[in-house]
Amino acid sequence: MSMNYRSSIASVQAVALDDENNSLVILDQTLLPNEKKYISLSEQKDIWEAIYSLRVRGAPAIGIAAAYGAYLGIKASKASAYGDLLKDFTEVKNYLASSRPTAVNLFWALNRMELRLKMEKGKSADEIKSALKDEAESIRKEDEEVCKAIGKFGLTLLKPGWGILTHCNAGTIATSRYGTALAPVYLGEELGYNFKVFADETRPLLQGARLTAWELKEAGIDVTLICDNMASIIMKEGKIQAVLVGCDRVAANGDTANKIGTSGVAVLAKYYGIPFYVCAPMSTIDLNCNTGRDIHIELRPDDEITEKWYSRRMAPEGVKVYNPCFDVTDNQLITAIITQKGIIYPPFSDNLASLFKEQDTLGKEKIVE
Amino acid sequence: MSMNYRSSIASVQAVALDDENNSLVILDQTLLPNEKKYISLSEQKDIWEAIYSLRVRGAPAIGIAAAYGAYLGIKASKASAYGDLLKDFTEVKNYLASSRPTAVNLFWALNRMELRLKMEKGKSADEIKSALKDEAESIRKEDEEVCKAIGKFGLTLLKPGWGILTHCNAGTIATSRYGTALAPVYLGEELGYNFKVFADETRPLLQGARLTAWELKEAGIDVTLICDNMASIIMKEGKIQAVLVGCDRVAANGDTANKIGTSGVAVLAKYYGIPFYVCAPMSTIDLNCNTGRDIHIELRPDDEITEKWYSRRMAPEGVKVYNPCFDVTDNQLITAIITQKGIIYPPFSDNLASLFKEQDTLGKEKIVE
Repeated sequence: MSMNYRSSIASVQAVALDDENNSLVILDQTLLPNEKKYISLSEQKDIWEAIYSLRVRGAPAIGIAAAYGAYLGIKASKASAYGDLLKDFTEVKNYLASSRPTAVNLFWALNRMELRLKMEKGKSADEIKSALKDEAESIRKEDEEVCKAIGKFGLTLLKPGWGILTHCNAGTIATSRYGTALAPVYLGEELGYNFKVFADETRPLLQGARLTAWELKEAGIDVTLICDNMASIIMKEGKIQAVLVGCDRVAANGDTANKIGTSGVAVLAKYYGIPFYVCAPMSTIDLNCNTGRDIHIELRPDDEITEKWYSRRMAPEGVKVYNPCFDVTDNQLITAIITQKGIIYPPFSDNLASLFKEQDTLGKEKIVE
Repeated sequence: MSMNYRSSIASVQAVALDDENNSLVILDQTLLPNEKKYISLSEQKDIWEAIYSLRVRGAPAIGIAAAYGAYLGIKASKASAYGDLLKDFTEVKNYLASSRPTAVNLFWALNRMELRLKMEKGKSADEIKSALKDEAESIRKEDEEVCKAIGKFGLTLLKPGWGILTHCNAGTIATSRYGTALAPVYLGEELGYNFKVFADETRPLLQGARLTAWELKEAGIDVTLICDNMASIIMKEGKIQAVLVGCDRVAANGDTANKIGTSGVAVLAKYYGIPFYVCAPMSTIDLNCNTGRDIHIELRPDDEITEKWYSRRMAPEGVKVYNPCFDVTDNQLITAIITQKGIIYPPFSDNLASLFKEQDTLGKEKIVE
């Protein structure tokens, strides 16, 4: 098979369909940053395992993998009658959905595939399979369009040569391509902006060290790795002109949940007078959630801090540990929220609400309906 | 030998003299947090190695170890004439001084021992050896008095039940006993204050996880370990009422150099309205250094971030890394500086200068003269 990995500076693609060989091709992210290896998955159980074991990760990338996986599952079906096809599809869907029960995008993508199948009722099995392939490809393509639009809007806020700090990984390997927070970086680099990117290592899971530093280096972008506690000194030393982060959920008032440590970076940016931008696909903006206080913060296992990655335990046996997965950044710390529909400035409550009243053709939130 | 490890709640003593057995007893801090092991060092080369390999660490503890080491070295001397004793002492001094050439306290302690030897000229070899033992004991005792005084002043700023955040390790095992930043915690605990201490793990060397969490847990104090990037969320959640940190150097205007990440914690404390206290022995206050801009920041090796402690490399091969060892906290972020002579409030330039004009009996800066 051939994949056009080098069609842009966002050179690494996390997920692709190899239809000819009935398989899903993914970059095995558990091997990063030490090995760049694509694996070809043709069995449903292998696709399930890849999602379960975080070989593919990042909400958009998981959704795309699940959509392709569902298509490959139904493609292999011997059924010809609609009812039998639907039965087989439901089995595939439920199986893939069980791979990572907390990943919202997984369900969103599988439900969208199911909806498409139902819309094709009355067509032949081959026509239905072809439609499901189209649907999966649309999910991937729309995600790339969202990322690219965020990148273009974001880029208008940046100047060539700027130092940019990012936290965690909201990059090309978490999405179809380009990423969210890193999309402006990749698009700028295509124009020769020569950004100097600083990546927080992002304890405890080290997504910044393992993934962000890796994918930016792979794309030939100037990237420097720091520990999370070094963000203050690099800002003070004048190395940073803008902060770009992704997000998991934006409340109606602009409060933003993202990887643990994001709110600290935002406080520092405010103190040092550096703009702090949240890159948010419309799908992450939740107008039903009033403020950050309504966002539940998941606590993760202690051993992620005390043992994981290490060759020996690094904290005393039995010590208490607090390991929240996310934190909430106050809306007053956010300079602007960059969506695929445009840049949203304060007051966020008004401006986010207006955004959803507008009719627009871009973005998956329209297409899902 | 017997050591009175449990004479106070600051139960762990990093360094002690076992004169009966002609040896220095140290807690081997390289084995923490997994093993609490005291080792007995009777050979000069073993004392040298213990300082070199960071088995004993923390400026005051290193000074005390060197002073005891110099005493044990001269105690073993067969010389009887003053000139011969001085010659043997100089050899011991130069040898121990080479163990960690950047540790200022090492030289300070060895010079003080040499001065004492010279003051004893004319006395018998036994009398000189006894005087050097007294001098080493004084260095240890004075350090404990400094720590205890900082603890007492610091404690007046804290209330029972408070949540206290600390960064790095400025605790009992870095000093004779009590520590600097942790001295108010230990003294409060002796009074039943029941503080809830949060320890930043302090990347990349993890002194918070390995040392601070260990020594507080060992003393039975309520301690919770967090990643450095979680300081913001615990402050936001109301878990922290005061921040206590140590320092490496305080400039004349109050700007303070301390372990990397300290300035970020100070910015967060300011934003969340939490007092930020620097615990500083007078010996760390440098009136010849005008501001933080005059403090040189040492850069450390890349592999401390990319490889150290890990079972495999956690960042891409060849990635750029920025690894400053310290950062400088702006004086405007510091609520007060706690010294053994009292609590210094802004304006620091005036109040630090006044402090040095006062005559006082407490603190080593007097006694060195």
